[in-house]
Amino acid sequence: MTQKPPKGKLYLIPTTLGSFDTSEQVFPSYNVQIIHTLTEFVVEQVRTSRRFLSYLKHPVPIDQMVFYELNKTTLNKDISQYLTSLHEGKSIGLLSEAGTPCVADPGSKVVEMAQERGYTVVPLVGPNSLLLALMGSGFNGQNFVFHGYLPIDKSDLIKKIREMEGNILKRSQTQMFIETPFRNDSMFDMLVTGCQPATKLCVATNLTLPTESIITKTIGSWKKEKPDLHKKPTVFLLYK
Amino acid sequence: MTQKPPKGKLYLIPTTLGSFDTSEQVFPSYNVQIIHTLTEFVVEQVRTSRRFLSYLKHPVPIDQMVFYELNKTTLNKDISQYLTSLHEGKSIGLLSEAGTPCVADPGSKVVEMAQERGYTVVPLVGPNSLLLALMGSGFNGQNFVFHGYLPIDKSDLIKKIREMEGNILKRSQTQMFIETPFRNDSMFDMLVTGCQPATKLCVATNLTLPTESIITKTIGSWKKEKPDLHKKPTVFLLYK
Repeated sequence: MTQKPPKGKLYLIPTTLGSFDTSEQVFPSYNVQIIHTLTEFVVEQVRTSRRFLSYLKHPVPIDQMVFYELNKTTLNKDISQYLTSLHEGKSIGLLSEAGTPCVADPGSKVVEMAQERGYTVVPLVGPNSLLLALMGSGFNGQNFVFHGYLPIDKSDLIKKIREMEGNILKRSQTQMFIETPFRNDSMFDMLVTGCQPATKLCVATNLTLPTESIITKTIGSWKKEKPDLHKKPTVFLLYK
Repeated sequence: MTQKPPKGKLYLIPTTLGSFDTSEQVFPSYNVQIIHTLTEFVVEQVRTSRRFLSYLKHPVPIDQMVFYELNKTTLNKDISQYLTSLHEGKSIGLLSEAGTPCVADPGSKVVEMAQERGYTVVPLVGPNSLLLALMGSGFNGQNFVFHGYLPIDKSDLIKKIREMEGNILKRSQTQMFIETPFRNDSMFDMLVTGCQPATKLCVATNLTLPTESIITKTIGSWKKEKPDLHKKPTVFLLYK
C-alpha cells in the first residue's frame, strides 16, 4: 500500500506597505526563505506580484511560476480550482498587494475555502497598518473594534460617530476605521466637527515609511492644527 | 543661539511568542539593528528582558543598561519619569513580554503618556497572535472586534455569546477573544454548548511555534472532535 503524500500548505504572505525598499524593515528573513520555496501564488495583481518576487530574488524564473488572480469577481469554483495543488502536496502562497493578507485586505475567501477543505494555513509575520496604528496610538489594546469604512452619507456618519463615542465610554473600546485616501481630509473634518472635544483621535499615516506619523490628540487640540492627509494611507482611531 | 537636540523616540519592540529560537522567523532584521542602538528599556520583567537582549547579542554589557519596570501597580508619575531620556534626546525601547506591546498586552499607558508629551512613537513589526489568528481563520478581516477576556460568570458568558452571535449576523463582524490558558478547555466546552451549530469557531493555538495550529470548523463539527487546549496559548474567533 502506498502512502498518500502530505498535503501542501497555504502560506499567507505579507508585502510592504509602500516601496519594496522597506522589505528588510518589515519582514523576517524567514518569509523570504518560504517564498523562495513556492512557485504558485494567489495574487491581486500579477504585475506587482512579479515585481515583488523579482525584488526578493526568487531563484525560479518568473515565467515558470503560476499566478492565480483574485478579485471581487473571482468565482468560488475558480478559487476551489486554485487550491488543487494543495491536495497534490504542493504549497501555495497567498500574496497581499499591501500589508498582510485578509485583514483590511481581500484574501479571506481563499483561506475560508482552504479551512473548509482541511488544509493547513500558515500566516507569516509582516506589517499591518491597523496593528501598528493601534500599538502607536496609546489607546486600549485589550478591547478594540475595526469598522472598515464608515458610512459615506453624512447623517449616517454622524450616527456612527455617536455610536462609536458611546462604545468608547461604555466599553472602554478603541474604535478603528479607514477611509479612501483621497477622502481622508473630509473624514478628518467630519470627525473634528462631529466628535466631543474631549474625545481623543489618533491619526496614523504612511506607516513603516520614512514619512510615518502617528499622532494622538484630543479633538479640541486637533481643531487648532489640521494635518495634511490627502492621498496618504491613514488609519483613524478614536478613544477617551 | 544653540539649537535644542532632537527628541528621542519611543520604539515599541515585539518579542517572540514562545522560545527566542523563533526570532528569525518573526522579526525583521531591522528590529535587531534598532535594539542594538538602545540602552534604556521599559519592561515587564527585567530578567526575561535581559535574556532577550543577550540572545540578540546586544553589543552593550547588560549591566550598563537601564531597565524601567512596568506592571499594573506602576504609578503614572513613575512612567513620566521613565520618559525623561526622550526629552534629553535619547531613544527608549518598550519591550513586550510576548508578542507586540500594547495589543492584548500592557504598555499602552507608556505610549499614551509619550503621545501626550508629543514624543515620536515608532511601532516595530513583529508577531501578534490576534492578527495571525485573524489572517488564518478565513473570517471577515474588514470588520472585527477583540473583546479581551470574556465574563467568567456562566450566565454573563452565555449572554455575551448571544451578543456576539447577534453581531456576527447583523454586522458580519468577526468576534475575537482570549482566555487564561488553563481555562481554555472549559471555554471551548462553553462555546460548543452555547453557540448555534452553524456558527463557525476558529481555534488558533501556539502561533508561530512548531506546534502551531489554526483550525476553523462549525460548532456542529467541533462537537465531534474536541481539541486539547490545556495551557496552550489560544485565540478564539467566531464568525458565520
